[in-house]
Amino acid sequence: MKRNDFSQWDCSLARTVDIIGDWWTPLILRDAARGVTTFEDFHQSLGVSRNTLTQRLNRLVEHGMLEKTLYSDRPKRYRYVMTAQGVDFVPVLMAMAAWGDKWIADTAPPFRVRHKTCGAEATARVVCACCEAPLALSDLEPLDEAA
Amino acid sequence: MKRNDFSQWDCSLARTVDIIGDWWTPLILRDAARGVTTFEDFHQSLGVSRNTLTQRLNRLVEHGMLEKTLYSDRPKRYRYVMTAQGVDFVPVLMAMAAWGDKWIADTAPPFRVRHKTCGAEATARVVCACCEAPLALSDLEPLDEAA
Repeated sequence: MKRNDFSQWDCSLARTVDIIGDWWTPLILRDAARGVTTFEDFHQSLGVSRNTLTQRLNRLVEHGMLEKTLYSDRPKRYRYVMTAQGVDFVPVLMAMAAWGDKWIADTAPPFRVRHKTCGAEATARVVCACCEAPLALSDLEPLDEAA
Repeated sequence: MKRNDFSQWDCSLARTVDIIGDWWTPLILRDAARGVTTFEDFHQSLGVSRNTLTQRLNRLVEHGMLEKTLYSDRPKRYRYVMTAQGVDFVPVLMAMAAWGDKWIADTAPPFRVRHKTCGAEATARVVCACCEAPLALSDLEPLDEAA
């Protein structure tokens, strides 16, 4: 199935979705954030087919989320490490997971992390970069209407 | 192509991805957040095929993100309005878009919104719900290792 080419849409959400919008990709990024780097370890963690995993990893490399480096010459083996762009997407994944924990989980989160900055379990919250209040749809209005 | 059933994975990110992880769904939610409610308006906004749109809307209703109500009996016409669960996902979409604005956009954001709380243009930032510092991968560690 050929999908639409969202990468050309003039909308950052569409372009982001174009990179991460498939079922495996966010989970590959989750594993990369946990320190998984090799094809075999991604494969074992996710149980995804080798063919699909290859495609998704290559796509993430192509889009600048992961960097691929050779670490063994015979046999040829590569390591996949998050780029700064990929690392910067981790808080977005955490916001997605926090939403899921709130609305659709029926067990405790299996991957719990500590925020070293404060020592507490890290739970993501999305706030306004200006006033730092939590963002909520009811507090938003189109910018042009408000002008 | 039958995909895996992530809804049964014990991971909130996987379950979230199971609901929103396809290319059209986040954009449908974006439009719903902007006040689009009718099938025809979603169709016109996104240019998605009617068949795909029907499937995605039904899936979002089934998963509690949108509520479907009849507003015309002849012909039968429905309105799709965000539930509280759907509304609560909007900040996550905004975090995705803010990341895209930073890393992959080459034009100004086309859908700009004002945060009525402070009057500034709303840009999402993902912070720790406890200490309110911006979350970054480098400040995280597994909870069990830290114990």
